[in-house]
Amino acid sequence: MNFVKMHGLGNDFVLINAMSEPNCSRNDWEAVAQKICDRHYGVGADGLILILPALEPGNDIRWRIINPDGSEPEMCGNGIRCFARYVYEQGIVSTASMRVETLAGIIVPEVQVQNGEIVGVCVDMGEPRLERQQIPMAGPAGGPVVGEAVEVNGQIVHVTAVSMGNPHCLIYVDDINSAPLTELGPLMEKHPLFPQKTNVEFVQVCSPDYVEMRVWERGAGPTLACGTGACATVVGSVLNGKTSRLATVNLAGGPLTIEWRESDNHVYMTGPAVEVFTGEWKE
Amino acid sequence: MNFVKMHGLGNDFVLINAMSEPNCSRNDWEAVAQKICDRHYGVGADGLILILPALEPGNDIRWRIINPDGSEPEMCGNGIRCFARYVYEQGIVSTASMRVETLAGIIVPEVQVQNGEIVGVCVDMGEPRLERQQIPMAGPAGGPVVGEAVEVNGQIVHVTAVSMGNPHCLIYVDDINSAPLTELGPLMEKHPLFPQKTNVEFVQVCSPDYVEMRVWERGAGPTLACGTGACATVVGSVLNGKTSRLATVNLAGGPLTIEWRESDNHVYMTGPAVEVFTGEWKE
Repeated sequence: MNFVKMHGLGNDFVLINAMSEPNCSRNDWEAVAQKICDRHYGVGADGLILILPALEPGNDIRWRIINPDGSEPEMCGNGIRCFARYVYEQGIVSTASMRVETLAGIIVPEVQVQNGEIVGVCVDMGEPRLERQQIPMAGPAGGPVVGEAVEVNGQIVHVTAVSMGNPHCLIYVDDINSAPLTELGPLMEKHPLFPQKTNVEFVQVCSPDYVEMRVWERGAGPTLACGTGACATVVGSVLNGKTSRLATVNLAGGPLTIEWRESDNHVYMTGPAVEVFTGEWKE
Repeated sequence: MNFVKMHGLGNDFVLINAMSEPNCSRNDWEAVAQKICDRHYGVGADGLILILPALEPGNDIRWRIINPDGSEPEMCGNGIRCFARYVYEQGIVSTASMRVETLAGIIVPEVQVQNGEIVGVCVDMGEPRLERQQIPMAGPAGGPVVGEAVEVNGQIVHVTAVSMGNPHCLIYVDDINSAPLTELGPLMEKHPLFPQKTNVEFVQVCSPDYVEMRVWERGAGPTLACGTGACATVVGSVLNGKTSRLATVNLAGGPLTIEWRESDNHVYMTGPAVEVFTGEWKE
């Protein structure tokens, strides 16, 4: 089975064109994902991405993304950039902006081309949710949570909370390299204020258009990159008056450019998608 | 750059024919190994194996194996099986038994063919060393260490010690699934009796020709498979009168057949080598 291996900030995927013979009729993709994502016995990846025909007229293409355990997440920011770049480069979709059918609804990634070269992919991540109960976060309703003092293990920490469909809790630090990621991260993740737990972002503001961020992901711990966390970081930093609406968020895996657009209130994430190798898998 | 990805019991390798254009003249293989072995930004492997021409007449082929950190181990039992299968299948070496130049000297793997199909590769792992000071193990000199009582953390454990070039300490258990791998493993590894530390093997004897074994590798912890550990297991089990000289050792990653041959005192290890996929790496 032919595949291509790509990554977005180190978050890596096997992509298979499920429309091509002899793939088109198989229905055991969950089992394929479990085998092919294995890093010792398979190709190795954080997920399997399938390229499929759109079901509805007006849409360009459909994707499925399947985790190494066979489950299907609703969306994946790093994965959709890889997907968009690949289908555009291969001519499967001919327009740089495309309507992609996903479990999270229609997502519209746009391949960024400069001087005939693809420099990244921009993804509309939708509107942030700022009301306390939308995060969700315990406490009296009313307005965004910006710089609120919270007691954790006897110390006071100031947090800003933003939901991008999933909850994020921002904590500003003076030096990203000494951020208490593995100490404070798990404590905030499970703090009683967050009934559905939370992702935790440590943020150092370097300038109004550049911040360093390290993420403790809910249920996963420290990861190389978290797209929704980068979005939440810029939204929260605008609310705190620390950055402008367009800023670069540098993560352990590399930079993402985030814009919280005033005109439509949507957050746009632009980042890299890199092809690493093509292969033929002996199933 | 074209490559093939293989594994032996889950220990996985990228193989590159360094004799083919345009590879033959490059001299930065350590840097290539570091990049290509990366599991998120590269192909991902436990090591890079290079296929090279023999330097001395009478030998068939030469290999280099390079770790993900760019260093070069002397030998690798799981890797040499993959190497031998591949060069035989590709016709790079035409004989099933071949003399391979390695940093550990000439190694002679033999591809096992049954009914025209490759069923495994047998590797001569050399002679075991049984004298206490050869392990090395502290204490009065003289004879092999078989079922010796050792105090660890207040309890008495019976150990058998075998060197296959590296030290191994066998501990027999009644049930492999409840073996104290992560509790006793690190304590034995660093026990003062083993001045160069030791690998620790937990062994359940199921029959005279079949044992289950789980390994705590020196400096690495639990791994899927350890070829020298499987060899030491059969040597030690013969010394204890628990198995015959030819037995299957089943590891977490799968089975190895080990023979401690009476005629030459060498230990022969036979196991699988599996091709997973071929690819072209965008360097």
